[in-house]
Amino acid sequence: MKLTPLADRVILKMVEAEETTKGGIILTGSAKEKPSVAEVISVGPGGVVDGKTITMTVKAGDKVITDKYAGTKVTLEDVEYVVVRQGDILAIVE
Amino acid sequence: MKLTPLADRVILKMVEAEETTKGGIILTGSAKEKPSVAEVISVGPGGVVDGKTITMTVKAGDKVITDKYAGTKVTLEDVEYVVVRQGDILAIVE
Amino acid sequence: MKLTPLADRVILKMVEAEETTKGGIILTGSAKEKPSVAEVISVGPGGVVDGKTITMTVKAGDKVITDKYAGTKVTLEDVEYVVVRQGDILAIVE
Amino acid sequence: MKLTPLADRVILKMVEAEETTKGGIILTGSAKEKPSVAEVISVGPGGVVDGKTITMTVKAGDKVITDKYAGTKVTLEDVEYVVVRQGDILAIVE
Amino acid sequence: MKLTPLADRVILKMVEAEETTKGGIILTGSAKEKPSVAEVISVGPGGVVDGKTITMTVKAGDKVITDKYAGTKVTLEDVEYVVVRQGDILAIVE
Amino acid sequence: MKLTPLADRVILKMVEAEETTKGGIILTGSAKEKPSVAEVISVGPGGVVDGKTITMTVKAGDKVITDKYAGTKVTLEDVEYVVVRQGDILAIVE
Amino acid sequence: MKLTPLADRVILKMVEAEETTKGGIILTGSAKEKPSVAEVISVGPGGVVDGKTITMTVKAGDKVITDKYAGTKVTLEDVEYVVVRQGDILAIVE
Repeated sequence: MKLTPLADRVILKMVEAEETTKGGIILTGSAKEKPSVAEVISVGPGGVVDGKTITMTVKAGDKVITDKYAGTKVTLEDVEYVVVRQGDILAIVE
Repeated sequence: MKLTPLADRVILKMVEAEETTKGGIILTGSAKEKPSVAEVISVGPGGVVDGKTITMTVKAGDKVITDKYAGTKVTLEDVEYVVVRQGDILAIVE
Repeated sequence: MKLTPLADRVILKMVEAEETTKGGIILTGSAKEKPSVAEVISVGPGGVVDGKTITMTVKAGDKVITDKYAGTKVTLEDVEYVVVRQGDILAIVE
Repeated sequence: MKLTPLADRVILKMVEAEETTKGGIILTGSAKEKPSVAEVISVGPGGVVDGKTITMTVKAGDKVITDKYAGTKVTLEDVEYVVVRQGDILAIVE
Repeated sequence: MKLTPLADRVILKMVEAEETTKGGIILTGSAKEKPSVAEVISVGPGGVVDGKTITMTVKAGDKVITDKYAGTKVTLEDVEYVVVRQGDILAIVE
Repeated sequence: MKLTPLADRVILKMVEAEETTKGGIILTGSAKEKPSVAEVISVGPGGVVDGKTITMTVKAGDKVITDKYAGTKVTLEDVEYVVVRQGDILAIVE
Repeated sequence: MKLTPLADRVILKMVEAEETTKGGIILTGSAKEKPSVAEVISVGPGGVVDGKTITMTVKAGDKVITDKYAGTKVTLEDVEYVVVRQGDILAIVE
């Protein structure tokens, strides 16, 4: 089974648990938005979303930072995913 | 009797009850939005909605994930449906 | 006396009382929006509304589902009507 | 003395007092918006309002239904008027 | 010293004190917005404001009704002015 | 050291302390927005800001009135500045 | 490891701790937004963001003032960064 995102949505798999440290990365979110590192699993087609043309710039395999409160959690066959809009992705970690 | 959605609306029939597990799928929603798996029953014509051209990309029979709080529940001849906007559909489950 | 709606407004006459059952139809609304079945009595001309061109797609006689909290109730010669915008109509019941 | 409305504004003179009945008309408003019957006294020129072209479709003498909470009350030489935007007028009563 | 308004702003000098009566005019504002009669002292150039083209239609000397809570009070050489946007002016009193 | 504003921002140096009087000018702000007189120190380049073309019309040396709560205070080498958007400037005092 | 911002986002490294003084700079923020001096580390590509074309005007090495509450803090290999949108940058300090 797999999840195919619609429009400008992106399926992520969290790499970092909330508030935990791994390697040299400590995530400290503000009260307003807390970031998390995640891996891009699949990417929607983009196109016209809410009247605006969205070009998808992330791709499967990218490690990204998003707002922790962005998106919807979905667990499929024991793996937890998060569905976000591309605009909720802040930066790529390389 | 049947429901014909207007504009960018989609008629769904819930496959998963809220917070219950079936097969390998566990749905865990955030406080903000909780997803649910549903089957697409019928699809509105799209077109210009609120000044923006909407192309319908889901079709009857698709299994989809939506925000649990999105849409309006309607029970017709003992079957419960949910009417959502296409933009409330996050991903297709295949 | 009659009511002629302006712009994208539609005059409805409720078929179903709130939370009651008739024939095979049970309406269960979420906390956010509760649907009701209504008959379309008259339809505004559409045209440019709030800077957007609206084409009216419902017509007098249609049975429709709307959000229960949408619109304004008006009683004219002992008949109660509800004035809604077309965009508040979710689906046509056939 | 007279009031000349600007832009898409319309000067109304209330026909029905709030919550009172006259002839066969009983007005029952929802908690959100309560309607009132009013006569159109004068109509602004329309034109480009907030970046959108507004064509005035009501005219002096029309009996209209508006949201009770819409607009600003002004008493001029002992007559009470209400200034509303045309978009706050729901329907014409004929 | 004088005040030259920018963009779509208009400098007004209040004619009527709040809630007081003069000649035949009694102003009764709703809880939401209370009107006041004022004289236009100077008018901004209009033009593109917030991405929308605004044509100024009021002129110095006009008596106008505005929402009492609209604008900013400024006292210059013992005269109190109010700076409003033209869109906050409801009607011209003639 | 100097501050170069971006986009439609303007660097101001307050002339009047809050609520104090100087010469014939008394500033009385409403609860919602309180004005202050300030001198323009430097002006951003304007251009396309949030999708809208902004032409800068104030210049260094202008005395202006702004909303007291608009902008961000910055003290640089013991001089306090306020950074506002040009749209927060109400009028030029001459 | 490095952070590559998406769209109109900018990676900053704070120069000034909150509310502290360094050299001749004292930062005093209003209740609404408090500024901070930061160095630009990397800059997103700009382009069409939320339907609007954004041209990036800051560059790596710039010292900038932003709203203290803007953006998301990320600590990578013991260095704390803040990810902001370019529109949250008020001015360049030279």
